[in-house]
Amino acid sequence: MRFATVIAGGRQVYGAVIEGGIVALSDDFPQWPSLREVIAADALGALEVAAQGRAVTHADGDFAWDIPIPAPEKIICVGVNFPDRNAEYKDGQEAPPNMSLFIRFPRSFTGHGQALIRPPETPQLDYEGEIAVVIGKGGRRIAEGAALDHIAALTLCNEGTLRDWVRHAKFNVTQGKNWDRSGAMGPWIVPFRDHAQITDVHLQTRVNGEVRQDDRTGRMLFPVARQIAYISTFTTLSPGDIIVTGTPTGAGARFDPPRYLVPGDVVEVEAEGIGILRNTVEDEA
Amino acid sequence: MRFATVIAGGRQVYGAVIEGGIVALSDDFPQWPSLREVIAADALGALEVAAQGRAVTHADGDFAWDIPIPAPEKIICVGVNFPDRNAEYKDGQEAPPNMSLFIRFPRSFTGHGQALIRPPETPQLDYEGEIAVVIGKGGRRIAEGAALDHIAALTLCNEGTLRDWVRHAKFNVTQGKNWDRSGAMGPWIVPFRDHAQITDVHLQTRVNGEVRQDDRTGRMLFPVARQIAYISTFTTLSPGDIIVTGTPTGAGARFDPPRYLVPGDVVEVEAEGIGILRNTVEDEA
Repeated sequence: MRFATVIAGGRQVYGAVIEGGIVALSDDFPQWPSLREVIAADALGALEVAAQGRAVTHADGDFAWDIPIPAPEKIICVGVNFPDRNAEYKDGQEAPPNMSLFIRFPRSFTGHGQALIRPPETPQLDYEGEIAVVIGKGGRRIAEGAALDHIAALTLCNEGTLRDWVRHAKFNVTQGKNWDRSGAMGPWIVPFRDHAQITDVHLQTRVNGEVRQDDRTGRMLFPVARQIAYISTFTTLSPGDIIVTGTPTGAGARFDPPRYLVPGDVVEVEAEGIGILRNTVEDEA
Repeated sequence: MRFATVIAGGRQVYGAVIEGGIVALSDDFPQWPSLREVIAADALGALEVAAQGRAVTHADGDFAWDIPIPAPEKIICVGVNFPDRNAEYKDGQEAPPNMSLFIRFPRSFTGHGQALIRPPETPQLDYEGEIAVVIGKGGRRIAEGAALDHIAALTLCNEGTLRDWVRHAKFNVTQGKNWDRSGAMGPWIVPFRDHAQITDVHLQTRVNGEVRQDDRTGRMLFPVARQIAYISTFTTLSPGDIIVTGTPTGAGARFDPPRYLVPGDVVEVEAEGIGILRNTVEDEA
C-alpha cells in the first residue's frame, strides 16, 4: 500500500492511494497532522489497516498531489554518488573519500503532476532523477549494519537544479538547488519492509519519453546504509527526515550542447517498486 | 525591549527579558505557539505592551536559554563575507561576484549559557561570531532598497564549525556546519526599528576574554540588504527565517598553529545594540 499527501478542496489531507484515487485518512487520525507524525508514531501500519475495504474519497483528477512529507525537519541530498557522475567533473580527481551533502528546503519541491518552474533569471533548469528515503526511527551515530532498519518509506525525487546558480559563488551549491518549485517529490511513499527495495533497484529518468538517466542503486559510490551512518555521525536523524540519495549520469548539463528543460517538457523519474514521478515544465508566471 | 525563548520547568516558553529574569508571555498568547508565529503576526509590539509593568515570572538561574526561534523554516548562512576572510583562503581569487550560502539545521545550535559540544570524532571545534537577522515580512525578489524593512529582529550567532569536516567531501560545507549543538544562537532577539541597528555596528568575538574577531558590519562584502535581495531571488523568505550574516577574520583555524576550542573555554560574541552571547565548551558526554 502507498500513502500520499494531496490538496483537495483547499485542504491538505493524507491517505492511501488505491485504484481510482485516494482514501483520505487524515480526518481519522487528528493526533497525526501529517505523514511526518504518522511516521514518528510508527503508524503506517495503522493507516493500512484503516484503509482496508474503504472506497475512494477523492477520485483521480479531483485533487492535486503535494510532496509526501510537506514539512520534514531536514531534507539532505547526496551529490556525485554514481561513478560516471564523478568522472563528469573532469577534474582528474579520484572518487572522494566522503560524500558531498547539501540541503534543500521543502519549498524547492512541488508534487507529482505539477509543473517544475523555470524562473526568468536563468534558462538552465535541469533534471536529476533520484530515490529518496524517509527516515522512520531516528538516531545518532547509526551503525551502517543497522542503518536500513531506520528507513520508514521510499519515494521519488526530481532534484531539479538551476545549473549556473550552482556555481554562482565560490563555495556551495545552495542557491542552485533551492529555487522555489524547481524540483519535485512523490507521488507517494512506499513503506520500506525489505532491504531489497533499495539495495539494487533500477532508476530511470526520461524527458519527453527519451531515456536520459538509467542506472541501478547497486552502483552508488555511497550506498544508502552508508549515507545514513555518515549523516547521523554529525546530526541526529528524526522521523520524517528525507535523504535524497544521488542521481545517475545523464543530466541535461552533461550534453554538448546542454539540454536544459523547456516549457512543455514532461520529465519522468521511475524506480522499480516505487512508481513514476511525472512533472511538466512551465515558465514562472 | 528584548524577547527570548527559554526552557523552564520542562516547558518551552517565550517572554520579555527584563532586569532579573523573564516575564513569560506565551501563555497569554496561545494563538502564537512560538516567537516564529509572533513574528508572522507582526506582533512583537503586542508582546511589548503585554509585558509593561509585569514582574519577573522566571528569575535568572531558574531557566535555561533556548535558541530564540526554535524551529524556523530556514536558517541560511552567508560565508566569506569580510574582506580579510576572503584573503584568508589564499587562492589568489578576487572577492567572488556572489555570496556563498549554506544551510544549518536548528539542532546545530544551542542557547545562550549552554555548552557548545565538541564531539569525539574531531578536536577541530571552531567559533565564528556573527549577527543574525530574523525575517519579519516575507517575500520573493525583495528589492535591495526595501530589504531592511523585511527584518523583524536581530540576534547573535556563534556559527560553530568542525573545521576538518567542512572539507570532508568534494563540495559543500554541510557536514562541518551541522554537528548537533556545535553552535549557539541568542540570547534574545532585539526588535529591528532603525537601519542603523545593522548597517555599521561593532561585532567582536572573545575566547576566555581574549579578542579573536573584531570588525564592523559596514565592512561586509555583501551587506545585509544585498543578502536579503539575493537570497529572495531564488527562495521565498518567510517570517521567522534567519539569515546568519557572516563572520569577521580571526577564527581559530586561521592561527598557526590553529587555536581550536577546548573544554572549559568561554566564547563570547558581542554586538553593539544586541548584547553578548556566551557559551562554554564541553566534550560530548
